[in-house]
Amino acid sequence: MQVQAADFFFSGLHLRGNTSNQLGSKVTPVFATQLPGLNTLGISMVRIDYAPWGLNPPHTHPRATEILTVLEGTLQVGFVTSNPDNRFITKVLQKGDVFVFPVGLVHFQRNVGNGNAVVIAALSSQNPGAITIANAVFGANPSIPWDILARAFQVDKSVVDQLQAKF
Amino acid sequence: MQVQAADFFFSGLHLRGNTSNQLGSKVTPVFATQLPGLNTLGISMVRIDYAPWGLNPPHTHPRATEILTVLEGTLQVGFVTSNPDNRFITKVLQKGDVFVFPVGLVHFQRNVGNGNAVVIAALSSQNPGAITIANAVFGANPSIPWDILARAFQVDKSVVDQLQAKF
Amino acid sequence: MQVQAADFFFSGLHLRGNTSNQLGSKVTPVFATQLPGLNTLGISMVRIDYAPWGLNPPHTHPRATEILTVLEGTLQVGFVTSNPDNRFITKVLQKGDVFVFPVGLVHFQRNVGNGNAVVIAALSSQNPGAITIANAVFGANPSIPWDILARAFQVDKSVVDQLQAKF
Amino acid sequence: MQVQAADFFFSGLHLRGNTSNQLGSKVTPVFATQLPGLNTLGISMVRIDYAPWGLNPPHTHPRATEILTVLEGTLQVGFVTSNPDNRFITKVLQKGDVFVFPVGLVHFQRNVGNGNAVVIAALSSQNPGAITIANAVFGANPSIPWDILARAFQVDKSVVDQLQAKF
Amino acid sequence: MQVQAADFFFSGLHLRGNTSNQLGSKVTPVFATQLPGLNTLGISMVRIDYAPWGLNPPHTHPRATEILTVLEGTLQVGFVTSNPDNRFITKVLQKGDVFVFPVGLVHFQRNVGNGNAVVIAALSSQNPGAITIANAVFGANPSIPWDILARAFQVDKSVVDQLQAKF
Amino acid sequence: MQVQAADFFFSGLHLRGNTSNQLGSKVTPVFATQLPGLNTLGISMVRIDYAPWGLNPPHTHPRATEILTVLEGTLQVGFVTSNPDNRFITKVLQKGDVFVFPVGLVHFQRNVGNGNAVVIAALSSQNPGAITIANAVFGANPSIPWDILARAFQVDKSVVDQLQAKF
Repeated sequence: MQVQAADFFFSGLHLRGNTSNQLGSKVTPVFATQLPGLNTLGISMVRIDYAPWGLNPPHTHPRATEILTVLEGTLQVGFVTSNPDNRFITKVLQKGDVFVFPVGLVHFQRNVGNGNAVVIAALSSQNPGAITIANAVFGANPSIPWDILARAFQVDKSVVDQLQAKF
Repeated sequence: MQVQAADFFFSGLHLRGNTSNQLGSKVTPVFATQLPGLNTLGISMVRIDYAPWGLNPPHTHPRATEILTVLEGTLQVGFVTSNPDNRFITKVLQKGDVFVFPVGLVHFQRNVGNGNAVVIAALSSQNPGAITIANAVFGANPSIPWDILARAFQVDKSVVDQLQAKF
Repeated sequence: MQVQAADFFFSGLHLRGNTSNQLGSKVTPVFATQLPGLNTLGISMVRIDYAPWGLNPPHTHPRATEILTVLEGTLQVGFVTSNPDNRFITKVLQKGDVFVFPVGLVHFQRNVGNGNAVVIAALSSQNPGAITIANAVFGANPSIPWDILARAFQVDKSVVDQLQAKF
Repeated sequence: MQVQAADFFFSGLHLRGNTSNQLGSKVTPVFATQLPGLNTLGISMVRIDYAPWGLNPPHTHPRATEILTVLEGTLQVGFVTSNPDNRFITKVLQKGDVFVFPVGLVHFQRNVGNGNAVVIAALSSQNPGAITIANAVFGANPSIPWDILARAFQVDKSVVDQLQAKF
Repeated sequence: MQVQAADFFFSGLHLRGNTSNQLGSKVTPVFATQLPGLNTLGISMVRIDYAPWGLNPPHTHPRATEILTVLEGTLQVGFVTSNPDNRFITKVLQKGDVFVFPVGLVHFQRNVGNGNAVVIAALSSQNPGAITIANAVFGANPSIPWDILARAFQVDKSVVDQLQAKF
Repeated sequence: MQVQAADFFFSGLHLRGNTSNQLGSKVTPVFATQLPGLNTLGISMVRIDYAPWGLNPPHTHPRATEILTVLEGTLQVGFVTSNPDNRFITKVLQKGDVFVFPVGLVHFQRNVGNGNAVVIAALSSQNPGAITIANAVFGANPSIPWDILARAFQVDKSVVDQLQAKF
């Protein structure tokens, strides 16, 4: 099969993602699914848009480290180290700042400015995966049994019900 | 430095872990910290004990797949696939059953029997790391700002306060 | 293809392997062949049973390190380092002891107690392979020419004949 | 050593690189040297600025694939496949387009617009290296003997002299 | 499929490569294409022949380190380190000398004797690739635009024309 | 530290190894110990000499695949696949033939001609290790207990004594 430029090309990261959703953020992925030439090459890219005060909520990438730079706006970013420390590492980023989220750690970004924010991020896998904690834990399909979550999070059934109703 | 048997040896996995804690479970690790000979070899082991109805709560290993076998008791195990499916894969395991948790995915085990339960598990790294979701999200040190969590989990401040008070 | 719990599940490691054979030991494997969900995940598990004085004879895993814990009985384990030292590293293990056999090294376990012995071991590949030295060297099919073995082991043809007759 | 946000942070990619040089382009690297937290994590980032008609000349990264997105301007990008085809794969990129340069292949970007151009690129190593073909071949220190280059490029000494005088 | 000796076997490295070409050198490859049993095993081999004063011109292997030993003749070998040093590392090798070219670096060998020269080299990939600099840069198909090359190499169009006419 | 040609250079593979030993063969290694520039590069080289009917006895490399070419003489080579097949794959090689021994498998070469034989081989690690089966099994230091070997090889104590006396 002849190599073609189209296999190494993707168009559209200039487009603002639609942030009209509950979290006020939108990830536009460029993984091997979107850009076949990435296969076996161990890297991919995303654009993330944030409405004012928008949040890319706590999540992990099971197979990739992420490096991110701010194109526009002011973002608070953070990650939490593993057990037993669970140390919260956070920083407010301005345009042109770069930050790294090591493989598998829980991390987030939120827009702490009054305007829109935009980042370009890269991930160390052509298929990094993403696990949004709230969705994986409280929105799994079918649901994780409520009593497991009640005990894990030390809350009663009504709180779990409330959480599971949202996701 | 002369190679010595002591570098490849660890003692104590026959000992029942102390499950007298809120979750009723205890992980005894054999990582490179406990067994120096594991360094660079890409594997490690743990024993996990569960009191009746004890729970090893939802967590991830940022750098390892886990394979587990039940030595004693009856366990419900489960993991949740990545976005967007967040599919909950679960199984009740009896003595001698084996189950796999792919790298980085959120998973748990709980004892669904009236007696104690015990597993031996292995991980595909000499330093796999573990991130207990509740502790990383609600018990980080310092705390993740409450409004981030309120938005991520779609609850109000009182629920976040309640959750952060526990961890 | 939809992910299913069955792909990540294997049943039967509680069953004592049949040790009624010349060596008095039996390996029950859980590799990718037995548990398809292990594919690409770089880990697998085995149970090994030993009759009293049973032996898992000198062997290597060409693609994996092995970590092992004793569930029952008393085992002498050992491995031999590479040329030129060929240092024999050995230890008598009791219930709950853990030992590591680094990738590719010749190792064995034998039951040095009067009762049965059982271990659970994990390997750092979903397809680790196993090479029993006696079988590979004296039981290859077709046979390795006798004069090669006579010279390698510095014995005469009658000894090689005797050895090849057994495997 | 305590983990600190500063180890995972770099500031300055909003700054336009100084393109007042012969090629009219400037790479601003964020490798492990600039951002120590990248160590062992297998990823890094750069900003590249191009004056009008500026060129990031043919080069390779010996240890990384590169993925790039255009922030501003219009760029022609290209890479050449290995022997024996030496197929030239090229594309004109607009703002928001993404392109991939597979590990080790000769590639370039040039600004084909009348204004400035800017890209953000990521590389699949914390220490990717860069080899500018003209500098490595004609500007090595000490010089590669002229007769080697004359024969390799099928030109006479005067042309090699001319080329070596420039680098 | 039954394993067969033929899959692990290749014949012909005793044959002198035909060096009746402009460069006076010839590479005979033994990659996975020529020897299917190499697949996934991460190694391959080549023989290189050099007529008197023959040259294996500056090239890179995008996916492999190369180790080489001289069987016959006297060779000057060299490689150039990455930016910014572009340090030229060179050595004259006699029969029995061994030299290493680290992954992705530009390197060459030339026969500096009056007789033929021969080397055996091995590469750390079953599919290492080879990029001859002159061919990739001046002989790409279709051609890299002349003005890009003129600027990259700081020469005028006539020199580029001359170079592109040769490859 | 400045890069120097000496770090990438080794001299002496033209020298015939001294085959005046019991086996009539001699391996001359060029590993990272002998050639420091090989570190982290994942490749190494050896020369092997064989007296007439000399044998490089059954051995494994715990961390490397080997590819070999015959420079001089006629060699029978062979390897044995893993359990349960233990299939013996063998071939008689002439000058210029190439053969591969996959990682970790038991393999040997012997000179089946009346003159000397020489090979150049490469290994897919800068530190491949070598385990001569006879030495690891019967010549370990201290010795593997005789009764383990008697049972593993199904011979009586006198045969083990005889074997252990030799190594």
